[in-house]
Amino acid sequence: MVGLKVYADRMSQPSRAVILFCKLNRIEFEEIKVDLTKRQQLSPEYKEINPMVQVPAIVDGRFKLFESHAILIYLACVFPGVADHWYPADLTRRAKIHSVLDWHHSNLRRGAVTFMINTTLGAALGIPMNPQAAAEAEKLLSSSLSKIESFWLKGNGKFLLGSLQPSIADLSLVCEVMQLELLDEKEKIRILGPYKKVQQWIESTKNATMPYFEEVHAILFKVKENLQKQRSNEMKVPSLSKL
Amino acid sequence: MVGLKVYADRMSQPSRAVILFCKLNRIEFEEIKVDLTKRQQLSPEYKEINPMVQVPAIVDGRFKLFESHAILIYLACVFPGVADHWYPADLTRRAKIHSVLDWHHSNLRRGAVTFMINTTLGAALGIPMNPQAAAEAEKLLSSSLSKIESFWLKGNGKFLLGSLQPSIADLSLVCEVMQLELLDEKEKIRILGPYKKVQQWIESTKNATMPYFEEVHAILFKVKENLQKQRSNEMKVPSLSKL
Repeated sequence: MVGLKVYADRMSQPSRAVILFCKLNRIEFEEIKVDLTKRQQLSPEYKEINPMVQVPAIVDGRFKLFESHAILIYLACVFPGVADHWYPADLTRRAKIHSVLDWHHSNLRRGAVTFMINTTLGAALGIPMNPQAAAEAEKLLSSSLSKIESFWLKGNGKFLLGSLQPSIADLSLVCEVMQLELLDEKEKIRILGPYKKVQQWIESTKNATMPYFEEVHAILFKVKENLQKQRSNEMKVPSLSKL
Repeated sequence: MVGLKVYADRMSQPSRAVILFCKLNRIEFEEIKVDLTKRQQLSPEYKEINPMVQVPAIVDGRFKLFESHAILIYLACVFPGVADHWYPADLTRRAKIHSVLDWHHSNLRRGAVTFMINTTLGAALGIPMNPQAAAEAEKLLSSSLSKIESFWLKGNGKFLLGSLQPSIADLSLVCEVMQLELLDEKEKIRILGPYKKVQQWIESTKNATMPYFEEVHAILFKVKENLQKQRSNEMKVPSLSKL
């Protein structure tokens, strides 16, 4: 088979964005799971595909590519039938999408990932959790959400850059924010609560990408449920430190 | 005048990459200095141009844009006469350039900037210098240089991705590495010394972009000289702590 292969773990935000994009645009692909909790990204086979040992990556025939934004742009350009709004041909609109995506790297993504690893996900990934790193990451996460609210969501449209329809930037950034679902409900409200436009934008993106949005995020909600059970058990049973 | 305006501080690596690109491609522009040591990026006028208060940004007629990679791509696409090697029309070559640029954000750039701020530039920018942050940043900087050496510079070409001619990715990453010139000579050799291909690649990019490379980096060499004078004065005069 020479078709498109997507190497991904749906627990990874950029993996979800790429899978969601393929499904929405009826791009046929084979999904190959690279399980991050089993550190499969470090296997010699996967290093041949992405030496940076991260997901997602694609193999399209003989062509290999990693970095989710680069993948989304490539797919939007090479597969026929992808609607223009995802990655507009107009150079100024395209430039603005690049600007959002570039900004994303050192702001929302860095803040959200570092926060989640240091509060919630570190244990499962074998990474020690550091409260000071969590506090710094929360600042960056909050300032990023504030910039999305006040700047990137300016205008009358429901989507980033005031657009009436979603672009690859909406997919990438909404998939990123969705990991906050794994937080304890109170924590999630504390962090996302102040940003009403951000909340509406998440809903709009969900609605515009049904039913695939739910499908691609199903694993996240399963993990959320398990974490909630763990938390309520911890509340019932006195912890060792209290004995 | 409705021409292109580039808001920049040549002490900023992405600013240098954008100015260098314009000069190399004979794109007419007006350079407007946003002095980072005077915190001019925080002025209300500049916030109208880039609410993220970073340089560079451009204004092209009524169109505003920030994030240097987005700017380089925009300029390569809208200005006639930019040679194809800077940002190839071929979608697979273009995708690989996006991949390098995306990778850059959270690796070489993050490592180099955080290292330089916490060892050398913090004082001038009014940012407190943190030795632990410097140590962590050095790890990321070194692992990034190692990935450039072993992966991005694979192949027979002198440039990234094995290319025979430079692309916007070479400009962006070489301008980034150039800030290491500000280090004490011993430090610079300690950090860059192990990476022979990286050193050759910097030379190749310098040679391919003469005479503009020297011109755009002149300010860096002036600051380097001042820092060297400061360092040798510190060595001659016993410091307060020794008295």
